[in-house]
Amino acid sequence: MSVIDKDAPGSCAHTHNGLCMPDASRKAARRRLAIARGHLESIQRMLDDPDVYCVDILKQLKAVQGALAGTGEVVLRGHLEAHVATAESRGDTSEIVDELMHALKYT
Amino acid sequence: MSVIDKDAPGSCAHTHNGLCMPDASRKAARRRLAIARGHLESIQRMLDDPDVYCVDILKQLKAVQGALAGTGEVVLRGHLEAHVATAESRGDTSEIVDELMHALKYT
Amino acid sequence: MSVIDKDAPGSCAHTHNGLCMPDASRKAARRRLAIARGHLESIQRMLDDPDVYCVDILKQLKAVQGALAGTGEVVLRGHLEAHVATAESRGDTSEIVDELMHALKYT
Amino acid sequence: MSVIDKDAPGSCAHTHNGLCMPDASRKAARRRLAIARGHLESIQRMLDDPDVYCVDILKQLKAVQGALAGTGEVVLRGHLEAHVATAESRGDTSEIVDELMHALKYT
Repeated sequence: MSVIDKDAPGSCAHTHNGLCMPDASRKAARRRLAIARGHLESIQRMLDDPDVYCVDILKQLKAVQGALAGTGEVVLRGHLEAHVATAESRGDTSEIVDELMHALKYT
Repeated sequence: MSVIDKDAPGSCAHTHNGLCMPDASRKAARRRLAIARGHLESIQRMLDDPDVYCVDILKQLKAVQGALAGTGEVVLRGHLEAHVATAESRGDTSEIVDELMHALKYT
Repeated sequence: MSVIDKDAPGSCAHTHNGLCMPDASRKAARRRLAIARGHLESIQRMLDDPDVYCVDILKQLKAVQGALAGTGEVVLRGHLEAHVATAESRGDTSEIVDELMHALKYT
Repeated sequence: MSVIDKDAPGSCAHTHNGLCMPDASRKAARRRLAIARGHLESIQRMLDDPDVYCVDILKQLKAVQGALAGTGEVVLRGHLEAHVATAESRGDTSEIVDELMHALKYT
């Protein structure tokens, strides 16, 4: 029997010194990502139509990018609350901030 | 028998005063979008793992946003070449530019 | 005496095969840029105050970035109307599109 | 005689519950902003030239936007280290995260 409570927000068994995504942001991210994927699939169907118009595709792509940005926001908020705000107590401020700054620039 | 050649770049039957996406950009967009979708599905699988770490999801989301931006670039280039660069000859400069400016701001 | 009318939208004497910024967008860009510069100078004054708070600076920086993006939009619209929409007639579609795609990615 | 050390990183007298910008990021932000302002002024001079070309202005605007984004990064890093990473110890996690999420979306 494990003594680790996997449902506790922001703690998990194996990775990243025991840091993992808070359950609430994991669930919200899954919900949003499922919607973004449905939207992306509808753009794929639009592209099967030889009469599709460039500007309509551009708009739909922007909408999916917005949905992914919204998903990123949910994940970032959970990370700030569960892992960044607790860094001083844990003693890894410098690592956690470097890691986040790097992730925010990643493209 | 139709006199309209649907494979001619930038011309099509029914929509948008006969403007449609050049075949080359439609195909390139489909290819890139298929890759972006595979990447998005892999993030969905990552989110099924209770041990997933926020920063890893943030990085993967940024990568898919970059892939969608790249798809948008392909579509924009085709649109500029096939439809914007020909606007004066066609006589719809003002409409075509308004439409594009609006699409580029869409989120 | 010059035969070239420098005030004609989108034409000028010496550079870029005779293409230059339409007068209306040059004036609008100057107006907007003067405002953005005033805003930037006010952030400089804020930074002279040792009690300034990070988040207030972040917000003001975002506002100036937004003002510059708005200036870029004015310039882009003028360029699309005066130079891109006329490319086919002039016969330099491929160069003008390459040049713009490059400029839009520039950081 | 004041007991408050205004030069201590991340602490200051009057505002925001005693939180203020770490001195190092304040100085780095000032340096970067002075450069960005010089660059912006050079775009203003370019716009005084009736022969200026749209695409050259677009590129320079993007460059200044990049410089402001870099300034924002310096400020964000200082804020994460000095104020967000210490939030749990201080007991204001929820306020500090809300405030930051709001600032990151501000345009």
